[in-house]
Amino acid sequence: MSIEDRLKELNIELPEIPGPGGNYVPAVRTGNLLYLSGKGSGPSTGKVGTDVDIETAYQDARRVGLVLIAVMKAELESLDRVNRIVKVLGMVNSAPDFGEQPKVINGCSDLFVEVFGDKGKHARSAVGFVALPGQITVEIEVIVEVSD
Amino acid sequence: MSIEDRLKELNIELPEIPGPGGNYVPAVRTGNLLYLSGKGSGPSTGKVGTDVDIETAYQDARRVGLVLIAVMKAELESLDRVNRIVKVLGMVNSAPDFGEQPKVINGCSDLFVEVFGDKGKHARSAVGFVALPGQITVEIEVIVEVSD
Amino acid sequence: MSIEDRLKELNIELPEIPGPGGNYVPAVRTGNLLYLSGKGSGPSTGKVGTDVDIETAYQDARRVGLVLIAVMKAELESLDRVNRIVKVLGMVNSAPDFGEQPKVINGCSDLFVEVFGDKGKHARSAVGFVALPGQITVEIEVIVEVSD
Repeated sequence: MSIEDRLKELNIELPEIPGPGGNYVPAVRTGNLLYLSGKGSGPSTGKVGTDVDIETAYQDARRVGLVLIAVMKAELESLDRVNRIVKVLGMVNSAPDFGEQPKVINGCSDLFVEVFGDKGKHARSAVGFVALPGQITVEIEVIVEVSD
Repeated sequence: MSIEDRLKELNIELPEIPGPGGNYVPAVRTGNLLYLSGKGSGPSTGKVGTDVDIETAYQDARRVGLVLIAVMKAELESLDRVNRIVKVLGMVNSAPDFGEQPKVINGCSDLFVEVFGDKGKHARSAVGFVALPGQITVEIEVIVEVSD
Repeated sequence: MSIEDRLKELNIELPEIPGPGGNYVPAVRTGNLLYLSGKGSGPSTGKVGTDVDIETAYQDARRVGLVLIAVMKAELESLDRVNRIVKVLGMVNSAPDFGEQPKVINGCSDLFVEVFGDKGKHARSAVGFVALPGQITVEIEVIVEVSD
């Protein structure tokens, strides 16, 4: 089954890609690796542990994952060229005593595995940042192995 | 000398690998690069600069390095296939006024150089995070160049 | 035009490279990728949003970019071997309510595009850290695709 068919089966529509918030590009390919710029959640903002609860932040991370898949599609034309999600860095806007970053970033990781299957299984770090741009709750960057 | 012999010479026994704390895998290989997921210290927790002192955190970072070597061995079967430790990201759970992250992450870096010699010399960033999963003191992720 | 000529045209003199603050090397090459260790600003220190304003931090980020270019030159001998700035991680020492990290890291990104043109356009994340080594304002690490 193509990834597009899989998205339909899952009732997933890819969102619009928000423009970059600075002097950089959405993605750079080098060899078979595609480096995606960090993408952020919205519209919810604030620090998980005080302003935002885990379930809300999980949904934020899932939404970031959808944006990242939309970027992959824009860069590659076909999502079937995604060979492997290699590495995810999950950045959670965190209160100092919040320690459940992995549960938050699972929102993105679960999505990648639902959509890409074994090719969606990735290495990951999910950690706490004191502040993110515009105080978004979650920002995620990813490295993808692609085929021609 | 094989790396296994070097470990014996250094009286190092590799620890058990703790399971992933989320929906991700311990490592992904793409081409000659092996991306390892972030691994954390334990059992000590807390922020360096207030709850934890530098020497304790240095030992935590060394222990994380041992876990990372154990992951390399599990992925590669033989540690002699480690061609180069390419890049280390050292994440220190830090009080806002703590600025000695490099001294902490040296616990891992010193280990890598002891074990792998010149192949263990890596590029690195060592910086302060407001919070880490479970409030561990140190988390480290690494990229390794491997040979077949 | 060679990159050296371009630097002259822009009246840019590359700074001295500060030594590593720990047991690591300035850069590691694997295949066509050169991983540069995180480099920090100076002499200004403190957290952006409270101790340091955006314009000062922008200049700090530009200065870090100059150091990173100096590292590229030291590693590659000729800056014309820089094929592409692939990925930038911009780390801003941030007050908890500061959310303009992209404006700060543009100091480095603008420089890379000025100097390298299209080859300087990179993927990026620019996010907030609770603390950096020596309480520098900005630290940046970069991955570069190089040619022989």
